[in-house]
Amino acid sequence: MKTPATFYHAGCPVCVDAERQIAEALDPNRYEVELVHLGEHADRIAAAEAAGVKSVPALVINGAPFHINFGAPMSALKS
Amino acid sequence: MKTPATFYHAGCPVCVDAERQIAEALDPNRYEVELVHLGEHADRIAAAEAAGVKSVPALVINGAPFHINFGAPMSALKS
Repeated sequence: MKTPATFYHAGCPVCVDAERQIAEALDPNRYEVELVHLGEHADRIAAAEAAGVKSVPALVINGAPFHINFGAPMSALKS
Repeated sequence: MKTPATFYHAGCPVCVDAERQIAEALDPNRYEVELVHLGEHADRIAAAEAAGVKSVPALVINGAPFHINFGAPMSALKS
């Protein structure tokens, strides 16, 4: 049985990037990844909060919440 | 060729947990994950900073830095 992993986001660009990079990087053989847009599915907010989610984007793996903050690379500021 | 992913940490318990959960969750078929303890390998700090790492634990995937903040589940506070 695969480990449940839920990626909560709100559709902002930084979330979309984190989603692509982190959520899709998980091993599909071991993790069942679900992507939840809390802006479109407000009914999922309570469950996210119950899992310890304080902000988005966040990844809940097997019940443990990890908040992900994308830091823009310096190179992105120099263009 | 696998995508490089570097997990920077400093040996704190929260880092060790994030390391186990996130770094080891990446698909080994697509990512070449390296774990770097910046407390023991200070010579790697400059490269981490150059990649945009502001705090640990952080995961740099293909050059993009993601800062990971572990939020303790409420259940852990109720024992």
